[in-house]
Amino acid sequence: MPALLLQHPFMSASALAECNGQAMVAAMLAFELALADVQEARGALPEGASGQMRRLLEAHAFDLEAIAAGIASGGNAAIPFVKQARAALPAELKRYFHQGATSQDVVDSALMLLLRPRLAALDALLQRCRAAALPLMRAHGETVMVGRTLMQQALPITFGVKVAHWAIGLEQARRRLAGVELPVQFGGAVGVHSGLEEPGGDNRGLDFMDAIAQRLGLAVPVLPWHTDRQPIHALGTALDAAAGAAEKLALDVALLTQTEVGEVAEPSAPGMGESSSMPHKRNPVRCALIRGAARQVHGHTTVLLNAAAQPLERGLGEWHAEWAPLIDSALLLEGALEQAAVLLEGLEVNPEAMKRNLAVTGGGIMAEPVAKLLAPTLGPDAAKRISAEAAETARLQGVPYAEALAAHAEVQGNLTDDALARVTDPSLYLGSSRAQVARAADWLMAI
Amino acid sequence: MPALLLQHPFMSASALAECNGQAMVAAMLAFELALADVQEARGALPEGASGQMRRLLEAHAFDLEAIAAGIASGGNAAIPFVKQARAALPAELKRYFHQGATSQDVVDSALMLLLRPRLAALDALLQRCRAAALPLMRAHGETVMVGRTLMQQALPITFGVKVAHWAIGLEQARRRLAGVELPVQFGGAVGVHSGLEEPGGDNRGLDFMDAIAQRLGLAVPVLPWHTDRQPIHALGTALDAAAGAAEKLALDVALLTQTEVGEVAEPSAPGMGESSSMPHKRNPVRCALIRGAARQVHGHTTVLLNAAAQPLERGLGEWHAEWAPLIDSALLLEGALEQAAVLLEGLEVNPEAMKRNLAVTGGGIMAEPVAKLLAPTLGPDAAKRISAEAAETARLQGVPYAEALAAHAEVQGNLTDDALARVTDPSLYLGSSRAQVARAADWLMAI
Amino acid sequence: MPALLLQHPFMSASALAECNGQAMVAAMLAFELALADVQEARGALPEGASGQMRRLLEAHAFDLEAIAAGIASGGNAAIPFVKQARAALPAELKRYFHQGATSQDVVDSALMLLLRPRLAALDALLQRCRAAALPLMRAHGETVMVGRTLMQQALPITFGVKVAHWAIGLEQARRRLAGVELPVQFGGAVGVHSGLEEPGGDNRGLDFMDAIAQRLGLAVPVLPWHTDRQPIHALGTALDAAAGAAEKLALDVALLTQTEVGEVAEPSAPGMGESSSMPHKRNPVRCALIRGAARQVHGHTTVLLNAAAQPLERGLGEWHAEWAPLIDSALLLEGALEQAAVLLEGLEVNPEAMKRNLAVTGGGIMAEPVAKLLAPTLGPDAAKRISAEAAETARLQGVPYAEALAAHAEVQGNLTDDALARVTDPSLYLGSSRAQVARAADWLMAI
Amino acid sequence: MPALLLQHPFMSASALAECNGQAMVAAMLAFELALADVQEARGALPEGASGQMRRLLEAHAFDLEAIAAGIASGGNAAIPFVKQARAALPAELKRYFHQGATSQDVVDSALMLLLRPRLAALDALLQRCRAAALPLMRAHGETVMVGRTLMQQALPITFGVKVAHWAIGLEQARRRLAGVELPVQFGGAVGVHSGLEEPGGDNRGLDFMDAIAQRLGLAVPVLPWHTDRQPIHALGTALDAAAGAAEKLALDVALLTQTEVGEVAEPSAPGMGESSSMPHKRNPVRCALIRGAARQVHGHTTVLLNAAAQPLERGLGEWHAEWAPLIDSALLLEGALEQAAVLLEGLEVNPEAMKRNLAVTGGGIMAEPVAKLLAPTLGPDAAKRISAEAAETARLQGVPYAEALAAHAEVQGNLTDDALARVTDPSLYLGSSRAQVARAADWLMAI
Repeated sequence: MPALLLQHPFMSASALAECNGQAMVAAMLAFELALADVQEARGALPEGASGQMRRLLEAHAFDLEAIAAGIASGGNAAIPFVKQARAALPAELKRYFHQGATSQDVVDSALMLLLRPRLAALDALLQRCRAAALPLMRAHGETVMVGRTLMQQALPITFGVKVAHWAIGLEQARRRLAGVELPVQFGGAVGVHSGLEEPGGDNRGLDFMDAIAQRLGLAVPVLPWHTDRQPIHALGTALDAAAGAAEKLALDVALLTQTEVGEVAEPSAPGMGESSSMPHKRNPVRCALIRGAARQVHGHTTVLLNAAAQPLERGLGEWHAEWAPLIDSALLLEGALEQAAVLLEGLEVNPEAMKRNLAVTGGGIMAEPVAKLLAPTLGPDAAKRISAEAAETARLQGVPYAEALAAHAEVQGNLTDDALARVTDPSLYLGSSRAQVARAADWLMAI
Repeated sequence: MPALLLQHPFMSASALAECNGQAMVAAMLAFELALADVQEARGALPEGASGQMRRLLEAHAFDLEAIAAGIASGGNAAIPFVKQARAALPAELKRYFHQGATSQDVVDSALMLLLRPRLAALDALLQRCRAAALPLMRAHGETVMVGRTLMQQALPITFGVKVAHWAIGLEQARRRLAGVELPVQFGGAVGVHSGLEEPGGDNRGLDFMDAIAQRLGLAVPVLPWHTDRQPIHALGTALDAAAGAAEKLALDVALLTQTEVGEVAEPSAPGMGESSSMPHKRNPVRCALIRGAARQVHGHTTVLLNAAAQPLERGLGEWHAEWAPLIDSALLLEGALEQAAVLLEGLEVNPEAMKRNLAVTGGGIMAEPVAKLLAPTLGPDAAKRISAEAAETARLQGVPYAEALAAHAEVQGNLTDDALARVTDPSLYLGSSRAQVARAADWLMAI
Repeated sequence: MPALLLQHPFMSASALAECNGQAMVAAMLAFELALADVQEARGALPEGASGQMRRLLEAHAFDLEAIAAGIASGGNAAIPFVKQARAALPAELKRYFHQGATSQDVVDSALMLLLRPRLAALDALLQRCRAAALPLMRAHGETVMVGRTLMQQALPITFGVKVAHWAIGLEQARRRLAGVELPVQFGGAVGVHSGLEEPGGDNRGLDFMDAIAQRLGLAVPVLPWHTDRQPIHALGTALDAAAGAAEKLALDVALLTQTEVGEVAEPSAPGMGESSSMPHKRNPVRCALIRGAARQVHGHTTVLLNAAAQPLERGLGEWHAEWAPLIDSALLLEGALEQAAVLLEGLEVNPEAMKRNLAVTGGGIMAEPVAKLLAPTLGPDAAKRISAEAAETARLQGVPYAEALAAHAEVQGNLTDDALARVTDPSLYLGSSRAQVARAADWLMAI
Repeated sequence: MPALLLQHPFMSASALAECNGQAMVAAMLAFELALADVQEARGALPEGASGQMRRLLEAHAFDLEAIAAGIASGGNAAIPFVKQARAALPAELKRYFHQGATSQDVVDSALMLLLRPRLAALDALLQRCRAAALPLMRAHGETVMVGRTLMQQALPITFGVKVAHWAIGLEQARRRLAGVELPVQFGGAVGVHSGLEEPGGDNRGLDFMDAIAQRLGLAVPVLPWHTDRQPIHALGTALDAAAGAAEKLALDVALLTQTEVGEVAEPSAPGMGESSSMPHKRNPVRCALIRGAARQVHGHTTVLLNAAAQPLERGLGEWHAEWAPLIDSALLLEGALEQAAVLLEGLEVNPEAMKRNLAVTGGGIMAEPVAKLLAPTLGPDAAKRISAEAAETARLQGVPYAEALAAHAEVQGNLTDDALARVTDPSLYLGSSRAQVARAADWLMAI
């Protein structure tokens, strides 16, 4: 599929290898077998039935093509899967398979099972990002660069504090994702475990549900959530938040990598970022891939937002619309975070370029502290004017700002050269940069 | 503005009264005064300066028209506001106002202050929904209705369990919203508290930030979050989740209110839901308003998802794009939840219609349990066939399903009338409905 | 890929067979060969070079796995493709391959080539829908049913006019799609055909561009559109419009198929719409698939809206984000329209159920015309009250509305039985239904 | 409303002045009076009735507060408006007002009327942009700058060709918008003009509809489009396309305005773009406002995409959800285009900075043509290597690329100084830039 070929760069290769049609079938089977185990343990299946099913079906070669074809008529993957599974069982076991379950139980629970290793992989990647960011922010705790607002040079910061902000965004997203629950779904045809009474007794549906969850390592929901899609909304938006955090990193790196800025560069790798026509060029391909992936995640998330309300006891398209956006979001995010981790681990930082760019305005970015220094002596208005005039002189004549100030008629003699040198030195005007790096490091390591 | 006129039905009137341009100005002022208080307490302002500012500015009549006009040239509301405020101060105080702050500090913190009472109102409305749902789900714990999947009749449930599912969705959303933090924003021009050193000493920016948060009752962020928009993403998507939960309620009520279904009706109110041309009709207007509001919230949230990544030290449009979607989402949600609360508090439930609809298929919805009952005696295939044939007979001849079964040639004599009556009685096939209501009630009250 | 397995039901199987990685490679090759042809015809390639390339490369077995792997490092499919192609050419031809082109030229043009047969297929499906709708709307030009607003019964219409509205929506979308242009992209590295001068003469880039377009059967753009994405926006939103038109059909059919309404049913097909647990149930699976697909298209379109602005001379993620959403939208739409065509061709219409539902309110839906008839004699207020009272009587006692009216104390003797029968007969109150069907048919056939 | 205060910078002040609650009432009234005129002209109203209504109602002071309050209970603006209007008419006229119409007719048609002057204003703004772009692209037809792909310097272009690409995007959007139709909506309660028969004769609904359209200057639809929302989709997505074209301009200007790039600057204006804390800084506020507006338009458009399918004969929330997004999109776009026009009319272009940036890579951007020139003599591989080595030497030693090449051991003597000067001169490597400007100008003026 071209979509696949065209999505390929955005998705994690290892994730794609693990998360395919085969894996979906395995996940659906895991749910059914957990159901059978639980029912047998509670006397709702003859002794040994569950084990026999497991032996037969785990060895069975499911026909994926047939399942794919069957989906279109049944409307979901569980219907052809259950048919194939039943056909592979001896007559006496058929009725015990999928007992009390409905398609949505199978598909929703299988999706949660498919997503569990993906969430683990995402958590590991976000931890890799954190682990890479910590030394980077410390190493550059004193690396002065200019801060830019609305993409204009503003005042000095350190590169370390910039890394700290990236790291906090990614770690906030990690903690949010880590808090998301993957609940089992088991409710039967209309979500109330119809027909699952013990002979002459109480309904055992909720008990089954809880036990299946435990057996599969999924979360126990309050009730079946067939048309209460809050869990999907929480999951999808948490994935999106992480995509946004990675996208922020990629946006900054792309901006700082611009030829005229050149403060950082993507880690080089053979064949990475070459142009098909221009030999001199190295493209920030990882940033492009992260940004391309994140935008697609936002689109998928929009589908989930609009499908949160599902009618009565089962969606009519709303439910169906969730599957691909949810899985694709996870796979795209995993791809984006693989790139983000590599970026943070190998980012080439160019402090010389940062220093060069600090001087581009001839010192104009230091006009604010200069004006503050001059104000008590010359009054605030004159101070502002003089600080700006000297910056302009410095830029036009290519002299240091301190010199231009010293030479300014209204400044001459009012301040020592040393005071001027200090007040125009960006590395002495870093605000809370150091403190922020320290505080961020504490917070990042606090779990 | 027509947009306003056209949005009016969706938004909460009381919220609109509280949350206007005046309130935005008050919130910006509250931030600036907290900043001054904190700075004075730490010796960064002359004693008494902060109190003097407070007296002068809290009494000052800000010119909202001028602020609105000034926004367009400055690009945000803080710039004209700070100008007006400074102009209202005596010369010696001007420089102490907005000291060390930047526009984004003011706007972001003011937004958080504006949203705090909105979140409180949302929480109260969601608690009202919960309080209304609890007696409703208990009152209808035995009210049998048909469950519908893909909008087709499936198997019986109770109305109580349906209410329980609504309530759980709304309460999940409430707890998610309750966990969202509203952090103060204070970072100065480039987010590192430039120039906020004590004379000859350490930078005090983070200390100021923490103290302002405490004074305003906002959360303390790890670091300033000027371009780390995870807090906005968390807030916006939590609002969206609640919109989705209300939308689910409205969708179900709208479907159950259809003329042919008639199982519930919106609470009647004078003038509510009348048609401009058809006197006999009562429109489910509250549902329409909830659904209309929720869809708009989804659109606003999409803006926030796509603006999560902001460049360098201040967004260039990305930040600006957040303001209206965020506030409008909160106002639309509050409007939707006001309607949802009224719906749940006054919902007209029609158990007779539920009973009538249970019979629409001639008992066909009970074919599954009937087939199960017949299977041991007649074999599963014959059981299925017979149960379906009798349902068809019942529907066509308008006789009870049990009678049609009893009269079926292959059933006659095999089962007692009592057994037939029991197995075709939807009220005896409610699965875990009761248990779910009980479990839901426990969970809902568990906080 | 589970996403694929889970997307499978929504996409057209025949489209998936045609539109895969192989097809993407073929399309990229078609672009390169057209470029070579055009250049050779203008003396920019040695005679015979283009034909030789064609022979060698059309016979070459491209290694798709390697291309897929290469995409991730290059950032797009053209880079590894061009490498493979060059490697397959003799040394003397290598430099003539991809001459003057850049990756984006190849990928954008190949996407247009891939989409051309998809647009043709979509047009054919929309024509199939139109062809199916025309006889359906004529056959039911007199089939009376109730019109429903806000899902409440309102006044009578015909089923024919409903079909006409569906058909007009679909045909509007078809005409919009038919008007969308698929332009060639050819601009070279920065979009200005760098280095494509004839020896000592004018640049031939625009001439090449026009000629390639002609040779490939693509539209000629004004200029290269590497970062002017209006063509993508026009295409993506036109696909979305068609998805919306199909979604409207599916929504109506789903609502009319509800068990309690039963006015239409999806065409039955073996295995289609069965439930995994309830034998009596037939799910409107086609509607669910259409709605599921359309929602995903909306999400993809959101990505395109947010990627319309691309920086400078090539996107950094914005461009990359377009590929999958664009192709997937087309494939999802094709799947949805295949279902829509089948729906319209085989829809089961149940005029008896329509008649039954017309009577559900005891005639209340005819209260408006009754009140109009009574008003001149009894005054408008009494007329309204009486018409409503009689409707209520009719509903409660199960008698025809005309009878209830005739029996009403204030009506008795004022109107003939015949007049009462006429005014309460929905089939005599169809407004412009017939005229609308006729007008729609003319318009539908007018191209 | 804070949302309003916060939206203010994005919206057109003149549009807001024209497009308010008052205007909505006027538009609803215009529809009703056109309906009355048409009906009177066809004998469906007593002679003079329409004129009398017009006199009374055009003079009537509608109570907007009451309408706003009434909207919430009726669910749309037409219901309280019709009530107020009827109350203002003498008894004998009341029944002739709103005759045969339904709320949706009034609201939809009024929206079209409100949007007509907005579309005219948008067209005028887009023409202003075109008029400003034409001289700009011609004036800079020879202004050399570097083209940038993935935000990296690539090869030379002219600033003129960049302006041409902006202009084409905007003009494509203009033509698309100009082709959008604003149809009247008139269908009565269920869209089939119920009860509009001439005494004993044919239904006149379609005739009325056509005549109202003509009288109001709106387009004639094939049929009423109460739940066929293709016209809304076409309109909303065309607005979004124009937003995207403006956003592209703003993105480019913002990138070229970066301190380190400095190739263009927003037109200066008093108070525009100042920073609240940094005197030296001028922010690209217009770009921020355009980008902020465009992103909000995309969000609104997402709502429209998801509301295209509306149930049966009237939406239940889907319709309601369209109003604000549609109007707000138009107002936001108008604001954005006002900024875009000013940008294009007054853009400060800095050819010196463009020249300076062309030299930043030491000539590396000319490595491609240099390698081409050297290849015949030195072989392609050596040529590539040498061209890159010399570029690096040029950059490090700050000498011109031609000099570095001439000094390269392997080049010495192989090429004349003149040849080297020519091949390293970006202004001689502009590809089709001139031709593109000419072609774009022809196309732009071709209507």
